[in-house]
Amino acid sequence: MGLWRAPVAEYGLARAAKLVHDAGLSVSSLCRGGFFSADDWLTDNRDAIDEAATLGAPVLILVPGGLGARSLDAARAHVAAALEALVPHAEEAGVRLAIEPMHPMYCADRGVVSTVDSALDLAALFPASTVGVVIDTYHVWWDERVWSLIESAGAAGRIASFQAADWITPLPEGVLLGRGLPGTGCVDTRRFAAAVTAAGYPGPLEIEVFNAELWARPGPEILRDTIRSYVDHVVPAGERNHLGEH
Amino acid sequence: MGLWRAPVAEYGLARAAKLVHDAGLSVSSLCRGGFFSADDWLTDNRDAIDEAATLGAPVLILVPGGLGARSLDAARAHVAAALEALVPHAEEAGVRLAIEPMHPMYCADRGVVSTVDSALDLAALFPASTVGVVIDTYHVWWDERVWSLIESAGAAGRIASFQAADWITPLPEGVLLGRGLPGTGCVDTRRFAAAVTAAGYPGPLEIEVFNAELWARPGPEILRDTIRSYVDHVVPAGERNHLGEH
Repeated sequence: MGLWRAPVAEYGLARAAKLVHDAGLSVSSLCRGGFFSADDWLTDNRDAIDEAATLGAPVLILVPGGLGARSLDAARAHVAAALEALVPHAEEAGVRLAIEPMHPMYCADRGVVSTVDSALDLAALFPASTVGVVIDTYHVWWDERVWSLIESAGAAGRIASFQAADWITPLPEGVLLGRGLPGTGCVDTRRFAAAVTAAGYPGPLEIEVFNAELWARPGPEILRDTIRSYVDHVVPAGERNHLGEH
Repeated sequence: MGLWRAPVAEYGLARAAKLVHDAGLSVSSLCRGGFFSADDWLTDNRDAIDEAATLGAPVLILVPGGLGARSLDAARAHVAAALEALVPHAEEAGVRLAIEPMHPMYCADRGVVSTVDSALDLAALFPASTVGVVIDTYHVWWDERVWSLIESAGAAGRIASFQAADWITPLPEGVLLGRGLPGTGCVDTRRFAAAVTAAGYPGPLEIEVFNAELWARPGPEILRDTIRSYVDHVVPAGERNHLGEH
């Protein structure tokens, strides 16, 4: 399971690590570092790397952050500089940094890296073992170049994480909590999962849905519907029967 | 001035044409044809071409429309087919069709052509005198390839329209009416105007702002602030003094 830093901190880092471990689970990724437009980005990202290491998460997801006071060109250059500052610490901690290209509607305020190729250009400045990219269907589904970019990313060993969510309209105010479970919108999430797998990404395939209505429901229901969505709309067809038994 | 079809229809097409002409103005573009996902797209777009001709608008802006019942690949292929069906009528009417790449947040429901290069690929199937592209800052500002794409588009004689609006956050529900006048957000609108001009586009430079608050204000105030925004944030610096006198 992927974890988020704020609820982990609230529950307690060591306690959360033990809870996951005792349940027989492992942490696939930690969300999120990045937000390099913030004043405390260096300290905060070093902390995030350490937290990922403590949790046994192999990957720290980096949401690059918005413009802040910078121009778009300068903000993008700053992301490269921030990565350079963080890579030695990540290497030492054994945590891979995963740059997440964000949907262009977040370019101003959440992530100035808007496409898979921009993320790959940044990652290419560093060893593939330490810096990769995230393929999140919600952010990249609209890009007609995405299929060839996934191939390139896989061939270069740069796919560090896969996350699936569906696109539903109308978008809510602030456009943050409008995602749908795979199968509820217009994205061919199964094609994406098959593409990253064919490109050599070994998994895991995460589902990551920001949706206020979904979050308001009881946990067991969310888990049930998420598993159903995963089986029906994410996992490759050949593996469905096997998974359907569980 | 750019006109919109619905208010023109409400006022009366011939009456609107006369009103604009008698005021000593000309129509720079008509918004909008397109929406090729609609059942009546062919009739509706033929009508739009005829209306543009009646108004003396040299350009009909095409918003390609969303997915409808199609997959993304099929919807994009359908845009090409629709253009092919419309080009002879547009040529006959002397109206240039301008494909508008829409911000990727509109890909599902308003426009499946998401980048300038996708729009150029479509336009390239037809003569430049009949099919061009729109450079609208609101839709393309986030794309780091946009400066070289504007150069290519200009060199190929494909820039048919320029529209400026600024990006402001948070986005409103439905993300349609959240634009700002140039200068109120994070887009370097002057750089865009300079880029299309340098690429050989002879103008006009339109301001197109969808904003409920702005629209609610008295017309003369809107006009005053729009002219101010144009002088301060759109028109090339060398022409400012001249314009400021008016």
